[in-house]
Amino acid sequence: MTDAALPFDTAKLDKLAEVAVRVGLNLQKGQDVLITAPVEALPLVRRIAAAAYRAGAGVVTPILNDEEVTLARYKHGQDQSFDRAPAWLFNGMAEAYSNNTARIAISADNPMLLSEQDPAKVSRVGKATSIAARPALEKITRFETNWLVVSYPSVAWARQVFPGLADEAAVGKLADAIFAASRVDRDDPIAEWAAHDARLHERVDWLNGQRFAALHFQSKGTDLTVGLADGHAWKGGSSKARNGIVCSPNVPTEEVFTTPHADRVNGTVRATKPLVVRGTVIRDIAVRFEKGRIVESSASSGEAVLKELLATDEGAAKLGEVALVPNDSPISNSGLLFFNTLFDENAACHIAQGQCYSECFENEDLSKDEIAAAGGNSSLIHEDWMIGGPDTDIDGIKADGTRVPVFRAGNWA
Amino acid sequence: MTDAALPFDTAKLDKLAEVAVRVGLNLQKGQDVLITAPVEALPLVRRIAAAAYRAGAGVVTPILNDEEVTLARYKHGQDQSFDRAPAWLFNGMAEAYSNNTARIAISADNPMLLSEQDPAKVSRVGKATSIAARPALEKITRFETNWLVVSYPSVAWARQVFPGLADEAAVGKLADAIFAASRVDRDDPIAEWAAHDARLHERVDWLNGQRFAALHFQSKGTDLTVGLADGHAWKGGSSKARNGIVCSPNVPTEEVFTTPHADRVNGTVRATKPLVVRGTVIRDIAVRFEKGRIVESSASSGEAVLKELLATDEGAAKLGEVALVPNDSPISNSGLLFFNTLFDENAACHIAQGQCYSECFENEDLSKDEIAAAGGNSSLIHEDWMIGGPDTDIDGIKADGTRVPVFRAGNWA
Repeated sequence: MTDAALPFDTAKLDKLAEVAVRVGLNLQKGQDVLITAPVEALPLVRRIAAAAYRAGAGVVTPILNDEEVTLARYKHGQDQSFDRAPAWLFNGMAEAYSNNTARIAISADNPMLLSEQDPAKVSRVGKATSIAARPALEKITRFETNWLVVSYPSVAWARQVFPGLADEAAVGKLADAIFAASRVDRDDPIAEWAAHDARLHERVDWLNGQRFAALHFQSKGTDLTVGLADGHAWKGGSSKARNGIVCSPNVPTEEVFTTPHADRVNGTVRATKPLVVRGTVIRDIAVRFEKGRIVESSASSGEAVLKELLATDEGAAKLGEVALVPNDSPISNSGLLFFNTLFDENAACHIAQGQCYSECFENEDLSKDEIAAAGGNSSLIHEDWMIGGPDTDIDGIKADGTRVPVFRAGNWA
Repeated sequence: MTDAALPFDTAKLDKLAEVAVRVGLNLQKGQDVLITAPVEALPLVRRIAAAAYRAGAGVVTPILNDEEVTLARYKHGQDQSFDRAPAWLFNGMAEAYSNNTARIAISADNPMLLSEQDPAKVSRVGKATSIAARPALEKITRFETNWLVVSYPSVAWARQVFPGLADEAAVGKLADAIFAASRVDRDDPIAEWAAHDARLHERVDWLNGQRFAALHFQSKGTDLTVGLADGHAWKGGSSKARNGIVCSPNVPTEEVFTTPHADRVNGTVRATKPLVVRGTVIRDIAVRFEKGRIVESSASSGEAVLKELLATDEGAAKLGEVALVPNDSPISNSGLLFFNTLFDENAACHIAQGQCYSECFENEDLSKDEIAAAGGNSSLIHEDWMIGGPDTDIDGIKADGTRVPVFRAGNWA
């Protein structure tokens, strides 16, 4: 698609690229940049490359994926191909992160790409890919370099969000929603991001001052107590990576988040939005936790994919993240369901199955064993799913049993 | 560009993908495939992925490059960016080749992409990239895995080959030329390739039987004696890679080739076609060799890029390959100048500056030191340039001084 044919204001795409490089990555002179993106996102890839070089980047390397090539495996692949993954590429990425390369992922996936494929094959590919990607993913979850996820309005994604509209209109509307949520529809997005970041840090500081032992979520279908990891720390907005660079890894972002205790989660919880995993939409998730582990799970569609996901490994049925997002926030107020975790997780309180973030501890230099001893979960996967809504009440519970209102009716108490 | 908009017969593109996978790579069940290509070549990338999966591929991974991102470095990059290269990606590729991954490069480059950029910056990027790519390139020049270069008709390339035509017509004509040269315009390309391969092997066997010590090239502006490496072997057509797979690394191919002696090349030689290097067209190259090394060089345009190229390292001004192609062959008979080495080198006898192929020795397991002792050249670069034409005479010279006619008036004697 040439720029002339893009059905949205490309000046805002320019601003999104600037925000990605200057706020999201906070790219430093001489840093190399690795961009992963679908081919369709090339108009943003090119703008980010230009913005990065203007900011003094070393070399910018895009790794572009193509949906047709992804589908070719399911259409034509023979049995042995579904347990393979390009480990060499992920090992290369891990080497890049070790050498101070900044990383941008452009999220523009077709939520339904794999919905008509055999869930068993989708799961096998997902698992093989997760295993191969682990050395690279661990460097991101350990926050070894500055990284960022940002979005681009692809046609297939726009069709899912605006099913009644013609492609051009749908892409235009999705673009506007992305631009608004990413705060690039304002005159000075950089200043807007600084003010937003300060507000998120106020919330983080308050939560860290409270030293809650657990959070108790209550809403229709949900009565869940999430114990927090020993020595956990709340994070949100900008944060310092281990390479010393303060970056904002999600554009947009509305969440503050921390590490739950992998063995201290009990009760029932109902998803308030569909979850898109591996090209499949999973609807109406309901699960019951017992001593940290999901012991019952159901979904009205995509249940097979959900169960495959939870069976990935020992840690996949336990929590690695809990995050708070008020109901009265820009993405939530848009009223849109994005079928994209980057957006939907920033519209509602959420929890994540799988790997925890080692940065979410007071001591950021804990070893793997120390993280596990403090209750931090370990897994090949990290999948956020949304549990907050307009009726969500949350209490913070201190070690002595004292309860402090945190959310009432979906917003900060 | 969607398939419907492609201005050529896509059934022939299907055949090209089949030839690439079945003849070029001779892909074995379970082998992974790495494809490098410009984004514009996606219609061929997708067909190759499908053909590879049908043939039992493990996972097919495209690494797509984009000209706008390449240009962004020259337009916006600051000084420090011109000595950087993504070593992590090349190291990953080297790992892939070590693990039996087959490799396809789709050649569709815009020959003029970098022609308006500062040659010094182009050279710095080229050198940094060559150094970073060396671990991967060495595995290809050592023929550790089955590999292939094949072409796709991009718009910018077609404009260069057919400057008077509208884009659609130019792409259509370039596509026809690629399909004809690649023998996919016939009913049974696989059988045509088998017959062609048998003819090339006849030439190879004859040359290896002669045990020439040198070749003497004579034509207008050229009087060049190319000593051959001790224990050299001629190759051409299909050949067995070190992973045991017999593949045909160039589609199309018309050449038979071997390793010259790096110190035994003397005389003057004039290029018979322009050479495209690093996005620059170098015209009318004329050089003089003394004891293997180029001691004088000139070009009517692109001379600065030529001199930078020859100064890359110790081996860049010496020869690493000599190849014989008759004037009466399909690509030559098309009368087209392709500005693309894969095609132009298969239309004329040529020599290559830089790295030799270690497979071009009777003993294919020589160490680096043994290759050097036998006269095999070593360099970061390998650049073919064309020296044959309709008036080319070549004599083979045996160790005892006996001369045997090899070419007369451009064709096999």
